[in-house]
Amino acid sequence: MSEVGTVFVGNKPVSSYVLAAVTQFTSGSKRVVLKARGRAISRAVDAAELVRRFLGGKVDYGNIKIGSEKVGEPGKERTVSTIEIELVKKE
Amino acid sequence: MSEVGTVFVGNKPVSSYVLAAVTQFTSGSKRVVLKARGRAISRAVDAAELVRRFLGGKVDYGNIKIGSEKVGEPGKERTVSTIEIELVKKE
Repeated sequence: MSEVGTVFVGNKPVSSYVLAAVTQFTSGSKRVVLKARGRAISRAVDAAELVRRFLGGKVDYGNIKIGSEKVGEPGKERTVSTIEIELVKKE
Repeated sequence: MSEVGTVFVGNKPVSSYVLAAVTQFTSGSKRVVLKARGRAISRAVDAAELVRRFLGGKVDYGNIKIGSEKVGEPGKERTVSTIEIELVKKE
């Protein structure tokens, strides 16, 4: 398992993303980044808070990045907001 | 107008929060913090990105904080995620 894990948050129940992140931490990752776009951003924030609660304060927030990206076919593109929430295991 | 403005993001159209934040900057605030809970978190991120685009790179992200708070009547409380997105005017 790599040092930095990534979880892409979409439309599944938030528990599936919490499980994915916790699994990456327990398998040895020191950092896990939750990535989401558009309406899934709220779910990514929920997942991050649940991971912190689940791991009982052993995980802190690292860098939180907000941005935008273009989605859709050329000529019909639209801009959607993005978030990257870095969770870091405390030493 | 105080140095630090605050915009609470709820269920209105995102444009109303963009306007509120831009107005605070143009009236002299150096920092504006967008605050949101639950599903409005995605809208707050959208608003922050739109403010940055609208003000043409004159505004950067400062501190972004994620947390939780309890809502609802005593005994029927539930925990909801929160976000605070600080936008800072470049000198």
